[in-house]
Amino acid sequence: MATLVMKFGGTSVATLDRIRNVARHVKREVDAGYHVAVVVSAMSGKTNELVGWCKDASALHDMREYDAVVASGEQVTSGLLAIVLQNMGIAARSWQGWQIPIRTDDAHGSARIVGVDGTALTDHFVRLNEVAVIAGFQGIHEPTGRLATLGRGGSDTSAVAIAAAINAERCDIYTDVDGVYTTDPRIVPKAQRLEKVAFEEMLEMASMGAKVLQVRSVELAMVHRVPTYVRSSFDDPDSPQPGTLICGEEDILEQQIITGIAYSKDEAQITLRRVADKPGVAAAIFVPLADANINVDMIIQVVSDDTTATDITFTVPTADFDRAKTILEGIHDQIGYASLQGATDVVKVSAIGVGMRSHAGVAAKAFKALADKGINIRAITTSEIKFSVLIDQAYTELAVRTLHSLYGLDKP
Amino acid sequence: MATLVMKFGGTSVATLDRIRNVARHVKREVDAGYHVAVVVSAMSGKTNELVGWCKDASALHDMREYDAVVASGEQVTSGLLAIVLQNMGIAARSWQGWQIPIRTDDAHGSARIVGVDGTALTDHFVRLNEVAVIAGFQGIHEPTGRLATLGRGGSDTSAVAIAAAINAERCDIYTDVDGVYTTDPRIVPKAQRLEKVAFEEMLEMASMGAKVLQVRSVELAMVHRVPTYVRSSFDDPDSPQPGTLICGEEDILEQQIITGIAYSKDEAQITLRRVADKPGVAAAIFVPLADANINVDMIIQVVSDDTTATDITFTVPTADFDRAKTILEGIHDQIGYASLQGATDVVKVSAIGVGMRSHAGVAAKAFKALADKGINIRAITTSEIKFSVLIDQAYTELAVRTLHSLYGLDKP
Repeated sequence: MATLVMKFGGTSVATLDRIRNVARHVKREVDAGYHVAVVVSAMSGKTNELVGWCKDASALHDMREYDAVVASGEQVTSGLLAIVLQNMGIAARSWQGWQIPIRTDDAHGSARIVGVDGTALTDHFVRLNEVAVIAGFQGIHEPTGRLATLGRGGSDTSAVAIAAAINAERCDIYTDVDGVYTTDPRIVPKAQRLEKVAFEEMLEMASMGAKVLQVRSVELAMVHRVPTYVRSSFDDPDSPQPGTLICGEEDILEQQIITGIAYSKDEAQITLRRVADKPGVAAAIFVPLADANINVDMIIQVVSDDTTATDITFTVPTADFDRAKTILEGIHDQIGYASLQGATDVVKVSAIGVGMRSHAGVAAKAFKALADKGINIRAITTSEIKFSVLIDQAYTELAVRTLHSLYGLDKP
Repeated sequence: MATLVMKFGGTSVATLDRIRNVARHVKREVDAGYHVAVVVSAMSGKTNELVGWCKDASALHDMREYDAVVASGEQVTSGLLAIVLQNMGIAARSWQGWQIPIRTDDAHGSARIVGVDGTALTDHFVRLNEVAVIAGFQGIHEPTGRLATLGRGGSDTSAVAIAAAINAERCDIYTDVDGVYTTDPRIVPKAQRLEKVAFEEMLEMASMGAKVLQVRSVELAMVHRVPTYVRSSFDDPDSPQPGTLICGEEDILEQQIITGIAYSKDEAQITLRRVADKPGVAAAIFVPLADANINVDMIIQVVSDDTTATDITFTVPTADFDRAKTILEGIHDQIGYASLQGATDVVKVSAIGVGMRSHAGVAAKAFKALADKGINIRAITTSEIKFSVLIDQAYTELAVRTLHSLYGLDKP
């Protein structure tokens, strides 16, 4: 019998009525003949409440204790859903992360899964034909025996990791949207729901602010080749919509050049003017930032009017902007730049598509289209399946709409 | 270094401010040189909320799932108190029942502790000089790996069991009263706080409706000879009051004949009139009740006017009254009684004291005093250290006050 993982987020289990609705989704798949593992988040609002208590208890709190407190939210939901399923005549039991176990590292508060033992789950499927209701977001750091949580959105990662461990046919992520769109529908009403999207593309979209799935879950799905659906938990359980399938490119027949347009306002720009153009200067700038755990994203270097000096522009997460400036001011004497300029009113707009690999000039077309609209490009980065431009935040909507039309995404 | 267990109930940890107050009590004992294990309940109201959700999910819910849901309340408090203690500069960590482990049987919802492994706790005391903050009320049924809870008031039992396991010097139960009283102060304003009470006496008081401690915790304290204080968590942490010490009789120098007067309204009376007076009739009545898990307490048998028949009166818990009647009606033909009479407007009033063992006529004095007040005694039971009378509920206050005065408990 095939196995299936179904994951339901906080809004889908916010009340007992919604939990009953979740149970009807599960029943449909059980009736269809699947062994089902359901992964649940905490009731919506519950995690925030628990996090708030930890912060009130101490601004600088031990993250191991934070994890003990916060993991309780998923524990509650898993037990309640098991009760509701049993009440519908479906054999079910709850599993906490430590009971399976889901093993994590010790980065408490944002731990990574290092392994999932699927033995006990599989045994219960086969021997007892029982639905496994699994508390998402949590696991155990076995060397210390402490609870660990996976960070925001971690239940997605739990679901995919479990799907890989029990060799599930697929992993269905039920959420409050009905799939992945070509871009943010609030900006482009013509945005289309994608039927399929490649793992690599989804990874870029997830990390670009299309916050449908936690990045880590997409990485895991890609590595373990777990076909993953994003679909709506608010569909009628008896006639659900298909959602969006995240899968290998080889499973996508009609490949578009560009699959989606993403944007991220969580970027800040820093420019160092007239940096001495000598070997090692890049290291002198970026090693101290890396040491401070600041992620530098786009980097461009332009020769300035003086040929012995250069201008270096790069972006950091907005939250790290002030910290980055302080660090750079501290090493001013070593680097010897003329001035430091910064801007937080910028946005990174990206176009993503595995089809870019086999098509030349895809990005060039975009630069021209944006220029035609009078949008000034501050920085550009490109990868095999993505290019991004950094522009003034005021042009966000215009740029997204322009690219969405340019690559033919407006039509179904 | 001596070890100490401190237990705080739900009202004592109801808010972060109260948790901070608990931490100050802990700090006092740490500063006094103790290794401390603190046992905490869920924030007050939290367990009721969780139980309510289980009931809403299904009236007949799997108690294993109930336990998974309900145990989360203590998990939260243990983490929060650990954070607050650390914030005060005291090394501390939370322990869930399964992490210690506290082993229980599989009577989910009202499990019994079958063993506590004190090794890890002791190791952390010695090696890390760390306060152990322990989630009360919960443990693990190891053969299945499922969480189990101990029933209402179970955190008291957790505390005493842990005190026994780590060989604690004493176990302090902090609660919302400042000790054990000679009787209910709401009925007798002159009721006195007892300085000491013997385990055996406390056991009778706990099971008689003086709901200061869970019965099971007193049993454990008695078996393991754990000196246990009942004291107030609302005292100033810097100048706490002594509370009441529950200890072996040998540690109580000036033994009173009667230590306290307890009462319980959770009793219902059943009388079977004119039961055939032949061997085996008692078994015919009480075995079916025992099979239905109904606890029969007081039993009296009186020869009726017909010498071939007898009247049998006994009490059952009020909650089981209807069920008991149904069972007895079902076996009417076997027993052949003339009529079944019942009353729920009764109360059991008890006088407790280990001094009764060495004094004759203690109960007889009470019967006379009650008769003088015109109180009719429906039934009597006696044990070595207790006697109880069943009377009309309307006379509760009068009877309690009469006995309280009679045995000299009104004076300090």
